[in-house]
Amino acid sequence: MRKPRDSAGQENGPPMQLTEAQQTEIGEARANPQPTLRPTVAAMEELLHRPIPVLDHGFVRVVDYMGDDAAVVQAARVSYGRGTRRVQDDAGLIRYLMRHWHSTPFEMAEIKLHVKLPIFVARQWIRHRTANVNEYSARYSVLDREFYIPAPEHLAAQSAANRQGRGEVLGRAEAEEVLRLLREDAQRNYDHYVWMLNEGEGGERADPSRSGLARELARMNLTLNLYTQWYWKTDLHNFMHFLRLRADAHAQYEIRAYAEVLLEVLKAWVPITHRAFLDYRLGAATLSAPMLACVRRMLAGEAVTAETSGLSGREWRELAEVLGRAP
Amino acid sequence: MRKPRDSAGQENGPPMQLTEAQQTEIGEARANPQPTLRPTVAAMEELLHRPIPVLDHGFVRVVDYMGDDAAVVQAARVSYGRGTRRVQDDAGLIRYLMRHWHSTPFEMAEIKLHVKLPIFVARQWIRHRTANVNEYSARYSVLDREFYIPAPEHLAAQSAANRQGRGEVLGRAEAEEVLRLLREDAQRNYDHYVWMLNEGEGGERADPSRSGLARELARMNLTLNLYTQWYWKTDLHNFMHFLRLRADAHAQYEIRAYAEVLLEVLKAWVPITHRAFLDYRLGAATLSAPMLACVRRMLAGEAVTAETSGLSGREWRELAEVLGRAP
Amino acid sequence: MRKPRDSAGQENGPPMQLTEAQQTEIGEARANPQPTLRPTVAAMEELLHRPIPVLDHGFVRVVDYMGDDAAVVQAARVSYGRGTRRVQDDAGLIRYLMRHWHSTPFEMAEIKLHVKLPIFVARQWIRHRTANVNEYSARYSVLDREFYIPAPEHLAAQSAANRQGRGEVLGRAEAEEVLRLLREDAQRNYDHYVWMLNEGEGGERADPSRSGLARELARMNLTLNLYTQWYWKTDLHNFMHFLRLRADAHAQYEIRAYAEVLLEVLKAWVPITHRAFLDYRLGAATLSAPMLACVRRMLAGEAVTAETSGLSGREWRELAEVLGRAP
Amino acid sequence: MRKPRDSAGQENGPPMQLTEAQQTEIGEARANPQPTLRPTVAAMEELLHRPIPVLDHGFVRVVDYMGDDAAVVQAARVSYGRGTRRVQDDAGLIRYLMRHWHSTPFEMAEIKLHVKLPIFVARQWIRHRTANVNEYSARYSVLDREFYIPAPEHLAAQSAANRQGRGEVLGRAEAEEVLRLLREDAQRNYDHYVWMLNEGEGGERADPSRSGLARELARMNLTLNLYTQWYWKTDLHNFMHFLRLRADAHAQYEIRAYAEVLLEVLKAWVPITHRAFLDYRLGAATLSAPMLACVRRMLAGEAVTAETSGLSGREWRELAEVLGRAP
Repeated sequence: MRKPRDSAGQENGPPMQLTEAQQTEIGEARANPQPTLRPTVAAMEELLHRPIPVLDHGFVRVVDYMGDDAAVVQAARVSYGRGTRRVQDDAGLIRYLMRHWHSTPFEMAEIKLHVKLPIFVARQWIRHRTANVNEYSARYSVLDREFYIPAPEHLAAQSAANRQGRGEVLGRAEAEEVLRLLREDAQRNYDHYVWMLNEGEGGERADPSRSGLARELARMNLTLNLYTQWYWKTDLHNFMHFLRLRADAHAQYEIRAYAEVLLEVLKAWVPITHRAFLDYRLGAATLSAPMLACVRRMLAGEAVTAETSGLSGREWRELAEVLGRAP
Repeated sequence: MRKPRDSAGQENGPPMQLTEAQQTEIGEARANPQPTLRPTVAAMEELLHRPIPVLDHGFVRVVDYMGDDAAVVQAARVSYGRGTRRVQDDAGLIRYLMRHWHSTPFEMAEIKLHVKLPIFVARQWIRHRTANVNEYSARYSVLDREFYIPAPEHLAAQSAANRQGRGEVLGRAEAEEVLRLLREDAQRNYDHYVWMLNEGEGGERADPSRSGLARELARMNLTLNLYTQWYWKTDLHNFMHFLRLRADAHAQYEIRAYAEVLLEVLKAWVPITHRAFLDYRLGAATLSAPMLACVRRMLAGEAVTAETSGLSGREWRELAEVLGRAP
Repeated sequence: MRKPRDSAGQENGPPMQLTEAQQTEIGEARANPQPTLRPTVAAMEELLHRPIPVLDHGFVRVVDYMGDDAAVVQAARVSYGRGTRRVQDDAGLIRYLMRHWHSTPFEMAEIKLHVKLPIFVARQWIRHRTANVNEYSARYSVLDREFYIPAPEHLAAQSAANRQGRGEVLGRAEAEEVLRLLREDAQRNYDHYVWMLNEGEGGERADPSRSGLARELARMNLTLNLYTQWYWKTDLHNFMHFLRLRADAHAQYEIRAYAEVLLEVLKAWVPITHRAFLDYRLGAATLSAPMLACVRRMLAGEAVTAETSGLSGREWRELAEVLGRAP
Repeated sequence: MRKPRDSAGQENGPPMQLTEAQQTEIGEARANPQPTLRPTVAAMEELLHRPIPVLDHGFVRVVDYMGDDAAVVQAARVSYGRGTRRVQDDAGLIRYLMRHWHSTPFEMAEIKLHVKLPIFVARQWIRHRTANVNEYSARYSVLDREFYIPAPEHLAAQSAANRQGRGEVLGRAEAEEVLRLLREDAQRNYDHYVWMLNEGEGGERADPSRSGLARELARMNLTLNLYTQWYWKTDLHNFMHFLRLRADAHAQYEIRAYAEVLLEVLKAWVPITHRAFLDYRLGAATLSAPMLACVRRMLAGEAVTAETSGLSGREWRELAEVLGRAP
């Protein structure tokens, strides 16, 4: 797992800046262990409250967790009762549950995170509805002057093959111009946001001759790469569903960067479930009925081609990829 | 909170029988406190894993919890940010959130229970969809020979006033006959269930001349007062929503008996939230626009009557009840 | 699709009895077509309101629907915008969405059913939480004297191979005894239910010397094979998720009987989506990372065995089944 | 209900511009009524597919609906069965359901809307999780050059009394400066977005010397007042829950503008439910236990003051407001 980076310092402030109040909160939370009769996970206790950096100013921070691999097993054994007594060891049972899409035992563990992320990433993330969210509200508070500026190696052209992905990395000159625009526009818009707010120290107006604009209005001038933050809580089943979609190669790099950190959190939290997740979800493939028919013919020795496969061109290519063959 | 009762012994077995495996599990879970950096609640640690009896054989058992009153406050302060800094103390903020129906901060705490309950109660309970459930499955396992038989003082006639409630308690002779029927029918049906299963010790057939019927089929002969059990996990917001509906005087006595135990769990877990819940939910009343118009006229000194109120007869009676006046 | 059967008459009443009020409602609903500017599906109009029989007294009845195949396409094209203009025809797009687990466009169509089903089936069905339900309430009303009695060919022993399934069909003598017990116990318990209620015609008591027991209590004496009914409404995505689990060979026969009728409803409603569902869900298989590794080795000509596969015994058998080979 | 406005023409394009494809779709959808046996609502047929303008470029468009007032009644009567036969007329039953927070019958009707709205409004809207959404994706498509610029009379200062609301309207000079900044920043950022995309007609590059930036990246330069659009589908219960929160005086003006249009849609769709919603939700007030105690004392003739009320200052003022009295 990545360690908090050195603050190399970027133009719009040191990366992943925590407020003083947040740092105090973290310090207090970690200073004072309490005895509990609940299941605990040593690797999660190690992680608790500490921000793990993501992108240039974002982070993920485990705030709380409930349950562990054993909690999944316990719930499954309630459902399947005496029937499972003689059966399998815990890992075998968890792998069975995962393979056969039994979701309810995985819903019995829960995690709560504090995440700092650009608004355009938050807009993708929030589409996962089965979660609880408290987001920092720009109606009540002034947002920080922090926005996401991609590293040059992540500035890519539109993919030709794929309407939704990225293609080649931009050349140096074009990349520099793009970065300049992104930086200047975000900064200017933020500066105008502050000007419109007209808020001074201690509650009075910065410029006494102006009223200042309400926060809920001024925020509309901000750009989508500004950082926001939220508390996000979900159960283990929905956590993995999020990871299946967002740790995927087709997900946008910026949200995948978060998903990859969360995969490490998953591993620390429920190592047996994590292993099963890699085998039966991330590394698995679903073959359609026509694809399965092709595979059976291939295994019977037939030299199936795109033409004789009965698959569409796109499906044929997908099958080839799954089987590790040239299309 | 009620203590585990003495086993007074009823015909269908001692009340609230835990299996040996369950007792062992409880003992182990309570024997071994671990240090944690998560929020802990001393009163909940005291309760953890121990069954609290409900009805004649049921129980509620806290298996795990996440968060406390402070977690609600923490989530609310993220949303409302700097704006709430100078503000209120925690109790004031929680009461404000409750009064103004802010639900998301209360979703940031979670509880997991093990519940044993009659099937007809489980059928009401499961209608609360925003929860996670793992129920003991009669497809996989044989159900225990335990069924709910009401105490005589809970055997009531259909209410005349209310199509869904109970009226007068039955007379002694009728009550005895009812109890005899409930007991005999439940026992006979259970005995036939066992006969149909034809399962002997150690996996072989009880009567080698018969195949025995599959568990998933034999169970259909059981009565709705048989006990089942499940793990049930929900967040604090939905926990209180459940309590608002099920701790209400209009709820059926048998599910209310569970809700009342859960109210005590709520008090142990989040005492400030519990107080606000009593004031702003359980003890509160919603007055419609026409009702409010009546109250204003009354406060202005007018002697409003059913006829001049503009309310339907039923609404007029509901208003009188809320105001503690004769209709 | 099955037609309403002739009422062959069974001991506990003619199959699939509709109340007079329900028949009147159906007649009225079908008598009076109205013009609409909403999407309509001719095959669904043909089905609307008419009960399709399931099991001995159950039915499924389409009460309303919203959207069609084109509504799925319309929603997808909003999401993918101009990008999809030149693209595929509707069927190609729907198949693409299904293959890549894009769920939200399928959430844009909705269906509402009236279902009559045994209580033990209802208890499995209700576990699908993302749906709206209004069930006939035995707190308010008296349930009908109708219970499910399996046909002899569905009376099977517990499977030896599979802790949750059925094995061999029972022999004639044992089956007859089981059916006798199921019938007698259900009838007796229902008769006692009626006796406890003590409700006469027109609201007065049947036996004036007794109070009668409240409905919410008397119902606990009923057996799990009694029929209940409900309105059930869900979106197309969750409808297919239900079908994927319940039309599966591992589902209990009694709920599968409903799922199979619903598969026909799916076909009438959204024929393109139905075809894609068969290919990419019902007929598809998910291969884990280790299974895929095996298939690649097999395709490369290696004679992989259970021992050299790296799979557990159970996984190896599952893979053999998917590939149509002897394990 | 508002009619589509004349296009007064603003700097960033005529208001509520529909694409040609959308206009064709509307024309086709309205040209071709089909007979249906489903419930229909004449007032909704009149509305169907036609955009109703909101704000400067937004709209709401009813795309489909399922059910009506009678569908709510039908579902309630299934639940309450024979018990409700003699009872009330439909309006009385709907009002009873609303007053007693029975939500499931209202879940039996469904509505689907096409909405065009500024991103910062969409971010509030999406927090209502119990809905289905397909949003126009800026990963796949290029967003239109349309952004929300408030009318001068909606440019207000931060409220002094309320950390989240608006206070006095800005003076003319300050308002003009704010509008100039909002307009210039949105336009410039959009222009740079287009430059970064570098997309020409017909798919080739606008400037052949540059690669152009992937859409998923370029969008981060856009401002939060840019318009997006989505299909949004929800049931009647959750539709009203949305309206209760968003048609409220405390909601931000910009989302309230949508909620007010939706209130009119509610009225056209389910007029009886709409009336009950006004009486029992929008116009109602929940009084806490301590507030109710005060009202009883007042009605008994006591001159209760803030000091003797036992309420906090804030609660006392809220009570005064509900009762229409000076605090």
